[in-house]
Amino acid sequence: MEFSIAQIAAMLGGEVKGSGTDKINMLAKIQDAKNGQIAFLSNPKYEHFIYATQASAVIVKKDFIPKKSISTTLILVDDPYSSFTALLEEYHKLISFQKSGIEQPSFISESSTTGVNIYRGAFSYVGNNVKIGDNVRIYPHTYIGDNSVIGNNTILHPSVKIYAGSRIGNNCVIHAGTVIGSDGFGFAPQEDGSYKTIPQLGNVLIEDNVTIGANTVIDCATMFGDSTIIREGVKMDNLIQIAHNVEIGKNTVIAAQAGVSGSSKVGENSMIGGQVGIAGHLVVANRTQIGAQSGISKSITEEGQQILGYPAINIKGYFRSYAVFKRLPELNDRLRELEKKVSASLSIESTPENGQ
Amino acid sequence: MEFSIAQIAAMLGGEVKGSGTDKINMLAKIQDAKNGQIAFLSNPKYEHFIYATQASAVIVKKDFIPKKSISTTLILVDDPYSSFTALLEEYHKLISFQKSGIEQPSFISESSTTGVNIYRGAFSYVGNNVKIGDNVRIYPHTYIGDNSVIGNNTILHPSVKIYAGSRIGNNCVIHAGTVIGSDGFGFAPQEDGSYKTIPQLGNVLIEDNVTIGANTVIDCATMFGDSTIIREGVKMDNLIQIAHNVEIGKNTVIAAQAGVSGSSKVGENSMIGGQVGIAGHLVVANRTQIGAQSGISKSITEEGQQILGYPAINIKGYFRSYAVFKRLPELNDRLRELEKKVSASLSIESTPENGQ
Amino acid sequence: MEFSIAQIAAMLGGEVKGSGTDKINMLAKIQDAKNGQIAFLSNPKYEHFIYATQASAVIVKKDFIPKKSISTTLILVDDPYSSFTALLEEYHKLISFQKSGIEQPSFISESSTTGVNIYRGAFSYVGNNVKIGDNVRIYPHTYIGDNSVIGNNTILHPSVKIYAGSRIGNNCVIHAGTVIGSDGFGFAPQEDGSYKTIPQLGNVLIEDNVTIGANTVIDCATMFGDSTIIREGVKMDNLIQIAHNVEIGKNTVIAAQAGVSGSSKVGENSMIGGQVGIAGHLVVANRTQIGAQSGISKSITEEGQQILGYPAINIKGYFRSYAVFKRLPELNDRLRELEKKVSASLSIESTPENGQ
Repeated sequence: MEFSIAQIAAMLGGEVKGSGTDKINMLAKIQDAKNGQIAFLSNPKYEHFIYATQASAVIVKKDFIPKKSISTTLILVDDPYSSFTALLEEYHKLISFQKSGIEQPSFISESSTTGVNIYRGAFSYVGNNVKIGDNVRIYPHTYIGDNSVIGNNTILHPSVKIYAGSRIGNNCVIHAGTVIGSDGFGFAPQEDGSYKTIPQLGNVLIEDNVTIGANTVIDCATMFGDSTIIREGVKMDNLIQIAHNVEIGKNTVIAAQAGVSGSSKVGENSMIGGQVGIAGHLVVANRTQIGAQSGISKSITEEGQQILGYPAINIKGYFRSYAVFKRLPELNDRLRELEKKVSASLSIESTPENGQ
Repeated sequence: MEFSIAQIAAMLGGEVKGSGTDKINMLAKIQDAKNGQIAFLSNPKYEHFIYATQASAVIVKKDFIPKKSISTTLILVDDPYSSFTALLEEYHKLISFQKSGIEQPSFISESSTTGVNIYRGAFSYVGNNVKIGDNVRIYPHTYIGDNSVIGNNTILHPSVKIYAGSRIGNNCVIHAGTVIGSDGFGFAPQEDGSYKTIPQLGNVLIEDNVTIGANTVIDCATMFGDSTIIREGVKMDNLIQIAHNVEIGKNTVIAAQAGVSGSSKVGENSMIGGQVGIAGHLVVANRTQIGAQSGISKSITEEGQQILGYPAINIKGYFRSYAVFKRLPELNDRLRELEKKVSASLSIESTPENGQ
Repeated sequence: MEFSIAQIAAMLGGEVKGSGTDKINMLAKIQDAKNGQIAFLSNPKYEHFIYATQASAVIVKKDFIPKKSISTTLILVDDPYSSFTALLEEYHKLISFQKSGIEQPSFISESSTTGVNIYRGAFSYVGNNVKIGDNVRIYPHTYIGDNSVIGNNTILHPSVKIYAGSRIGNNCVIHAGTVIGSDGFGFAPQEDGSYKTIPQLGNVLIEDNVTIGANTVIDCATMFGDSTIIREGVKMDNLIQIAHNVEIGKNTVIAAQAGVSGSSKVGENSMIGGQVGIAGHLVVANRTQIGAQSGISKSITEEGQQILGYPAINIKGYFRSYAVFKRLPELNDRLRELEKKVSASLSIESTPENGQ
């Protein structure tokens, strides 16, 4: 990124106060920024930094009035934070897409096809009959099994492993070490106590605009023609387990180390906390929010609930119960005390009465 | 797979009703099956599909009597589901074993040996003095360290990492990204608060017929000559942690994201639920079933128990206690109410007595 | 390792009793040791093995007096266990550092530099402008992104993935499959229920003497110039999640499958148990010990506490409460019983009064 301050101001629809000719090559925080860099000021408690910053330009609110003299150039906008984020995003795109071309050695079957403007890193592997869209970035050590399909603008970070027959949509990002399409955990118990492997012949279907973190695993569906499905816009963190035949609804967010067991269906716009476990063959309603580390052992049919615990219950109920849990030894003592009193009282009552 | 219907019927010991000459190239569900595919009908509630299916053949129960006219060929067998599963398995083997030969570039030390009918994918790495059996499939990006041994018919999916000195048995399947033989977590505290690494010099021993999911980690044992041991027939899911010197007994099944700490021994034919944690230096008896997310902090010496909770207790006991836990605030209120009543009652009783 | 017994005794500052000329090529346990190997005897209950061992030498305590005749050579030292550990460590270093040179094919950008005595395994990848120190071991399939820095004597096991811009210190060990610097989990909710990705532009900073297990993930910080920081001497196990902008204090130990959410700061010399979850934006004081599977939802400000539970509380308090939890159904019964008695007693009392 090498734009002049005036060019950046134009991109942001902002006004330049000072010289607009300097070149910007990096974004930075206002307290750290150096010459050639651009920062922003949004929170008033950081205002003192602007009077000493070495940044070539600072994005500020339209109505910002300096209390001291300022040497940096200002770009006046409606919302400095949003403007800065927009710049970040632009920069990030430039970074992400700067990788291009084919590094060697890399492996691609002759039966596979790729779109325009591709990056295939060294040691990447593309099997037979794979279809890869335009602007796809395949980082080093990534493996794409036979008959898979990868949509446009999708980024596969280093060492992503995609089993044969997987389908990944457009604008997806999959981080390093994640495994897509490994065998579901299916074994039939035999009479001698051993297990026979049930062949796993379905696949994984990931729709558009899905982001998946690092070292996560999504298993394939069991039967031919079935898919484990991650719907459009789902955002998944690192080290998550998604079992065979699971379906995750549109725009649902899943935090790190959560796990969803076989054949469960999670609704849309839900939020699943870190280290949550969801048992198999359940339904989780739309807009459910599940607190971190909860265990879900029954279907959740009412939409929009906040739940917590193990097994998970309504979040307020859980905390009320847990508040008493912490005082259980005291409760126990009080109960024992009361038993003594009542027992004593009854014997007192009965003794004189009997004696009457 | 391209067999005629008659050939498949013969393989299954079934009887053909209709034309046996059509070729089958795929298995499918009865509701989805197309020409050239074979399906099965076992559950009566799917019966209506058989009258409209485009499948070239459907496997049905010997005593099945159609209520309408049927255009597909039938294969009559004792148990349609078992027969279909057997076919699936056969098909899966064909798929698994169709990969063969050596893709380039790949790396193997001159001091290592391989059996017959091997697949070594591109970018796979085999170190020094490794012994690889017959029919082994080593997928791309898999790493096998020095002095390791891999048994016959074993499949190592993409990017499996096997540290030096590991021993893997026959007929094992290890899924993508799994790490075998990394250092156990051993550190000796020093006086200044820092830790010194205790060298980890044992290995991992995996017996025959073991299946391990994706991105799982099994650490090596600490001392020379010791092994972390996974016994015959164990089935492990994804993202599991097995620490140094652990032993998992024959035919035990471990669900995803569970963890077993150092030196613990899990018995045979046990079932460990998802996200379970087992502390170090414990023994878990044979045929123990541990509910998902439980924490095991003491040895389980009685065989065949079902346990749950944190720390885990008998599963029925846990649920009975949890049922009361959910009503703890109410219990607390009732106790307080009772205390008031008793206190009031005692003061009523005592007042006149004092006045006597 | 091929040293004579006399050489080893000299290294350990010990005294030889017997022949010092035999060569030692391996370490072993006293019960397993063979000719050419060295073992140690520390625990008296293993003493009987020394009279039958085939070890060429055994390290024993200075004041050890054999009760029977011994054929092996003794090395007398102050503390046999420490001496043996020191030898193990020496051996391990020799093993670790025996890998050297460049295996082909491997990939390194012309703009990157490496120190002396490097190992770069086959299929390893080093991007642009990377600085690699002396004695670094980069195993096969490891990926080092652009602009990263790797300190001296650091070992990167197979398939470690280091994103662009990461900084790793001296004497670090990172095990197979671990991901350093993947995107933090940051998404801004939009009005239509979808999420927009917040670009993640910070990096990861790992100081000296840090060990990280296998398949762990450490996300980068969000903003330019910010870092997710792992301080000097931290020891982390396998499958751990460290989110964006987290800081782990000096000499803290984290067990397997634990997770720390975004922007939390864990103090020095702390111990975090397996499968623990720490919520975001918290502070955990120095020397805190957190029991396995606990959930930390509030900052811990008092140093040196032992805590447990979900949400975590003082460990003794938790166990006292849990002891009552297990008897909750009984407590509930006793409460109900008492309510009946009190109610009966009050009605007895009131009846005559009413009758007055």
